[in-house]
Amino acid sequence: MNQAYEQLQPYLERAMAYQAALILFEWDNETLAPAQAVSYTAKMQGAVSAAYQELITGAEVVKLLEQCDQEGDLSETELAVIREVKEEVEQLACIPPEEYREYKELVSESGGIWAKARENRDFEAFAPTLKKIIDFQKKFASYRAKAGQKLYDVMLDGYEKGFTIERLDQFFDKLKQELVPFLQQIRESEADLRDDFLTGDYPEEQQQELAKMLSEYVGFDFSKGVLAVSAHPFTTALHNHDARITTHYSERLSSALFSVIHEAGHGIYEQGIGDELTQTFLGQGASMGMHESQSRFFENMIGRNEAFWVPLYEKLQALFPRQLAAIDRETYVAAINKVTPGLIRIEADELSYSLHILIRYELEKQLIEEELAVEELPGLWADKYEEYLGIRPEHAAEGVLQDIHWSQGFFGYFPSYALGSAFAAQMYADMKKKMDFEGLLRLGDISTIRECLRTHIHRHGKIKESGRLLREMTGEDFNPDYYLNYLKEKYGQLYGIL
Amino acid sequence: MNQAYEQLQPYLERAMAYQAALILFEWDNETLAPAQAVSYTAKMQGAVSAAYQELITGAEVVKLLEQCDQEGDLSETELAVIREVKEEVEQLACIPPEEYREYKELVSESGGIWAKARENRDFEAFAPTLKKIIDFQKKFASYRAKAGQKLYDVMLDGYEKGFTIERLDQFFDKLKQELVPFLQQIRESEADLRDDFLTGDYPEEQQQELAKMLSEYVGFDFSKGVLAVSAHPFTTALHNHDARITTHYSERLSSALFSVIHEAGHGIYEQGIGDELTQTFLGQGASMGMHESQSRFFENMIGRNEAFWVPLYEKLQALFPRQLAAIDRETYVAAINKVTPGLIRIEADELSYSLHILIRYELEKQLIEEELAVEELPGLWADKYEEYLGIRPEHAAEGVLQDIHWSQGFFGYFPSYALGSAFAAQMYADMKKKMDFEGLLRLGDISTIRECLRTHIHRHGKIKESGRLLREMTGEDFNPDYYLNYLKEKYGQLYGIL
Repeated sequence: MNQAYEQLQPYLERAMAYQAALILFEWDNETLAPAQAVSYTAKMQGAVSAAYQELITGAEVVKLLEQCDQEGDLSETELAVIREVKEEVEQLACIPPEEYREYKELVSESGGIWAKARENRDFEAFAPTLKKIIDFQKKFASYRAKAGQKLYDVMLDGYEKGFTIERLDQFFDKLKQELVPFLQQIRESEADLRDDFLTGDYPEEQQQELAKMLSEYVGFDFSKGVLAVSAHPFTTALHNHDARITTHYSERLSSALFSVIHEAGHGIYEQGIGDELTQTFLGQGASMGMHESQSRFFENMIGRNEAFWVPLYEKLQALFPRQLAAIDRETYVAAINKVTPGLIRIEADELSYSLHILIRYELEKQLIEEELAVEELPGLWADKYEEYLGIRPEHAAEGVLQDIHWSQGFFGYFPSYALGSAFAAQMYADMKKKMDFEGLLRLGDISTIRECLRTHIHRHGKIKESGRLLREMTGEDFNPDYYLNYLKEKYGQLYGIL
Repeated sequence: MNQAYEQLQPYLERAMAYQAALILFEWDNETLAPAQAVSYTAKMQGAVSAAYQELITGAEVVKLLEQCDQEGDLSETELAVIREVKEEVEQLACIPPEEYREYKELVSESGGIWAKARENRDFEAFAPTLKKIIDFQKKFASYRAKAGQKLYDVMLDGYEKGFTIERLDQFFDKLKQELVPFLQQIRESEADLRDDFLTGDYPEEQQQELAKMLSEYVGFDFSKGVLAVSAHPFTTALHNHDARITTHYSERLSSALFSVIHEAGHGIYEQGIGDELTQTFLGQGASMGMHESQSRFFENMIGRNEAFWVPLYEKLQALFPRQLAAIDRETYVAAINKVTPGLIRIEADELSYSLHILIRYELEKQLIEEELAVEELPGLWADKYEEYLGIRPEHAAEGVLQDIHWSQGFFGYFPSYALGSAFAAQMYADMKKKMDFEGLLRLGDISTIRECLRTHIHRHGKIKESGRLLREMTGEDFNPDYYLNYLKEKYGQLYGIL
């Protein structure tokens, strides 16, 4: 029995409560808060953030962490808690409280500035804020950097342990070398898949019903979760009994369909975290990439799977008879998998998706490591879209202003999206060996698949790093070939390319 | 320039941020949080409450408060801030932190227990929790009580300064002596006002539209406020730029109509608080009674006023043609003012309303001062309804379990409802002398009335006590005769009683 560990608990409980309060403030801002509230509430978010920093980097916590090590006799879970708290202390202790608070207030407001700039297609209105955020991010990373460590590596480490610039360069170079020409082949292929019927007058009320039905069908538990509407779909969680997903409704049915399955995947991960980890520093996903692997898995390996629609498609037709009665299932499944390189990441097809991430990765690296000026972003962004996807944005809203991430200071986050897709493909290859994956889907049995993911991934929360979880589940280190093979096989087949 | 006052500000800012977080947790619980979340989140609410208590009663704050007094040179507003903080310190410093936290966790969960008991009409399922809450309340009051001070007086003081048992006994005795026989007269009168058309199949979608329209019409500002749905309508506010009201929809149109105007009145008060007081200890209503005076004023003096409906009634008919096309305005206005003594407080007509409060006041006094056993509540409750209103509840859900207040530990709160109504009547008498009140309503001009209330009441926040605000506005101390005269005149006329 480690006494210091026991004594540490009330501090950690309070820290978790502050975290939950901050999560709730953010959720509320995105889904409900009135327009004029934001700047006022930002002040309060700043004050709670400051209290959190003060508490977690305080002398008592630091002393107790040291005593924990000295006393020893800690379980694997307890060791993992200590590891996570120490990392948090390291990250925050080096930032002067006034700077941290100033930064937190900045990013509480910057979301609104970004949203308005996007609405007005006016990058210049956002550029000064973005510059401030980047400066803060670089400064904070420099505080944390070990000798010789690159700043962007420091940032990447916060989202995905072990995935450095060096390793990501290899990963993304491979994607670029293989997928850019493969996408080119598809664009030149004879196959002409129709998907016109996926856009149109889909009434919001039925879309709401669909969102509820689909998220429940894949296993999102509404007694421990909430579905709301926001401009940009996202998932958050107060704890494993309160996971919250959002969606949005538009004229594009596929957006409503796959946004909600995607976010439900995130939510199911949060709801699946073991109860012994709830409201601790381990009561969250293993990493951003691992989180994204689950949302992508639900969205693509399950939701875009032909077998998934066998028991469901008639229900979908019944919801939208005017639009879908004359469309057979094969046509529908081909349509939801149609490859159409576009400008908007969150509307991207599964194949071109990782090229959107490649672009962001390359630009972030330049911004952080090569002094790229913010003013040059829109032009470079457009050039890269032209080079990799063959299309060019006409204004900032469909270009550099489309993602909220940078406005929130999330530099180093984007690579997780591509890694997540690759993790998911490796899991999928493994599960297909162990179960009749498509057979289960055809029977409407999602729970066997979900329980497998829960057993190997979800319930462990943040005890283990993503690489280890993947290895323990699949018996192999991370291997991006599974992802490339999966994409080439699936889309080669769909488009008749060998 | 008082230096101690300046040094105090960061502590107060943090305290306000904790308060806002707690308000947001509660709002979220009532409007959105999933069923299983409550007990988990309660733990976090307990932790934030404990942090709040620790901060506000901490040595630094106490020392700075003393120094503020010594340094002097404080403005009226600054003095009022110090007064409020000192009162908060006094209230919390005497409660041992562990007890406070235990209590906060208890009341975070007790709302759910109460709601379930009410659903099952099962008082016994709630009684043990209620007993615990009363024990805590009495213990906390005993910590705060001055020598010889009654515990219920301590509780009352928390909601309405200056209104002791002695003064409230006089007030309620007067109401009882005059209103019980007056209500009896009305019940025996020949007048037969029809209001059947106010109940029926009112589609929720149109009710929503109505709620939005009415709250906006009376002046609730949606750029600084939110309207949501909850089981029990209520108002809360994070600050003066974020006031939140809820409503509910049922078969009773008058419930939807007047709930929303009532809560909009509360919300308009919060939105009207001066910006120089925002996010300070003065950035809230002067007292519970004063808050209720504003909601009652909007609900009754404005919303149930015949003149209010002159420019509005056709719009209401257009929203509900099937139900209201054949009903003329006079019939409608009589119906919304019909006196029907009922069992449910929040559905009570304006006249019998204060008798519902009288019953709660008498029972609270017995519970706190006369050792009334919780088990005896349902019987006594029923007896008093029979005596004062002439009807008897058949089960606990329409009796002792109908109000959420006791489950939240709000003992001493109910009298504010009756006081608020009486404050409102005194303001109304005063305003009728100074402006053509009904003429303004007929022109659809609410803003002149609202600005008058804002000038005299809202903008001052909590700088002044309710009695002083009332005196400064009306030139007179609180005088309940205005309330009795208002009720007797209005309802005497409606029912042809002299």
